[in-house]
Amino acid sequence: MYIPSYDDVVAAHARIAPYIHRTPVLTSSYFNELTGADLFFKCENFQKAGAFKVRGASNAVFGLSDEMAAKGVATHSSGNHALSLSYAAGRRGIPCHVVMPRTAPEAKKDAVRGYGGIITECEPSTSSREAVFAEVQAATGAEFVHPYNDPRVIAGQGTCSKELMEQVEGLDAVIAPIGGGGMISGTCLTLSNIAPGVQIYAAEPEQADDAYRSFKAGHIIADDAPVTIADGLKVPLKELTWHFVSNHVTDILTASEDEIVEAMKLTWKRMKIVIEASCAVPLATILKNPEVFAGKRVGVIITGGNVDLDTLPWIKS
Amino acid sequence: MYIPSYDDVVAAHARIAPYIHRTPVLTSSYFNELTGADLFFKCENFQKAGAFKVRGASNAVFGLSDEMAAKGVATHSSGNHALSLSYAAGRRGIPCHVVMPRTAPEAKKDAVRGYGGIITECEPSTSSREAVFAEVQAATGAEFVHPYNDPRVIAGQGTCSKELMEQVEGLDAVIAPIGGGGMISGTCLTLSNIAPGVQIYAAEPEQADDAYRSFKAGHIIADDAPVTIADGLKVPLKELTWHFVSNHVTDILTASEDEIVEAMKLTWKRMKIVIEASCAVPLATILKNPEVFAGKRVGVIITGGNVDLDTLPWIKS
Repeated sequence: MYIPSYDDVVAAHARIAPYIHRTPVLTSSYFNELTGADLFFKCENFQKAGAFKVRGASNAVFGLSDEMAAKGVATHSSGNHALSLSYAAGRRGIPCHVVMPRTAPEAKKDAVRGYGGIITECEPSTSSREAVFAEVQAATGAEFVHPYNDPRVIAGQGTCSKELMEQVEGLDAVIAPIGGGGMISGTCLTLSNIAPGVQIYAAEPEQADDAYRSFKAGHIIADDAPVTIADGLKVPLKELTWHFVSNHVTDILTASEDEIVEAMKLTWKRMKIVIEASCAVPLATILKNPEVFAGKRVGVIITGGNVDLDTLPWIKS
Repeated sequence: MYIPSYDDVVAAHARIAPYIHRTPVLTSSYFNELTGADLFFKCENFQKAGAFKVRGASNAVFGLSDEMAAKGVATHSSGNHALSLSYAAGRRGIPCHVVMPRTAPEAKKDAVRGYGGIITECEPSTSSREAVFAEVQAATGAEFVHPYNDPRVIAGQGTCSKELMEQVEGLDAVIAPIGGGGMISGTCLTLSNIAPGVQIYAAEPEQADDAYRSFKAGHIIADDAPVTIADGLKVPLKELTWHFVSNHVTDILTASEDEIVEAMKLTWKRMKIVIEASCAVPLATILKNPEVFAGKRVGVIITGGNVDLDTLPWIKS
């Protein structure tokens, strides 16, 4: 297992800079008053392909040798990683193969195709997905880019906190959502090297709190198919992300489904930005635990903005 | 009729700077590809109180003598002007009286109260509104601040284009929505003085196209209660805004209700920002008339983001 270093983050930043946005940091006097903290929102919802994942995906794609790149890349995500990898592959002019269940929403398939991804459908089961993915890899020789358990991806995600530290002085803490742990691992990698005094909080849905329970137990606990509105956060930690989480995370906080939806809607209403349910989880935990953050300068990583605008969780249709 | 000068805009900017945001300018490679133009979105949806109107309202409030200010300010808007005037009055620590129909949505009343506005209810008729407003003014001596037909307000709105010209080089055109004409008048005032070669387009709903018809006819045409989703754009031009529109606007373009909703939803989806229907009208007209804007660098004023998130126009509940 190769553990990426901060040098890998610096190299990643130089490599991906032409293909990503240096996203802005927004503040909200409303939320500052509500929480008693100074919050700095790093807006990766404005990122290319609508999410931070384009950082890691671009680092993987543009780090390939020409020979490897010619065969393309492949993944089996159906979320933001698939969009991001398709975007990055498109920028390099190489194919991106995405294995998705045939039952996935057409909107998600269309979004992947919109970024140039080539979809191969599988049955909605782990065994079918793995079998179909193996076939695609065998047929194409495409390089597998895991959504998070990959040092290239983690180094890429680490560029987000690198920018945040360049944009905001004197942060006391940074908080980000945790699913598989890619963003949190990149955050740990960067902050433990350039700002080791900054606390790192991870935020997780109560209904998919495997990282929370792993953190408390001291070993990885993986759940089978948790159900939460924060659909980017259902996946479990893997060995590489567990390394960073177990060594560098200050604490993991959780929020209920209602608290997540309320924080999401309140962000749209007061900050006028479209954010995913998954990235409302940090704000939900801050609103729930004001004593942890009051008086501190806190970076909040808004991880993405890819939302199905036709089915909003607070509107019963 | 006092016609404000560009000196008034410069003075307004210095006066209101502590109370407003210098809002960011966003770009979208997606919309650039779609339109063939280079679009620069001036994001007043991120403005204090959620709309550009806080510029004019703050200029009016902070320009009052202490003696006048002590009696407070008053208006009879139920939209963004009421919010903005309440916000500005609150910052100065003076009362803001708002006359609103008792039938107005509770959410709007709550929003005004949330910014400290004092609501006096009237019946939902012009005669009742005028009678009640006269009573409030007589009882309080509060200074009336009209939502747009007021030189202090127009000079304040002119600060938006002043910032835009400082933020983006080489613009060929600027486009903004037109209702009563406050924002367009401020835009005309600023650009005709500091960038007279820049074209000024106004965008209006087809279903409330009184400014369009006024512009073509050469005199003010006012409609009685037009119906459009762009609810900030229902009001007619008045003599002061007509002065600027008739002298400086290049053209007025219109869009249908469906085109407005589509542009609104597409902005949310691709730019990840919450914008009102009213300020989707410019983009709708650009998408409808690409030949007018292709190859040009165009400033698009996103006027506000105060939306009822429980009733979105593309979701049938």
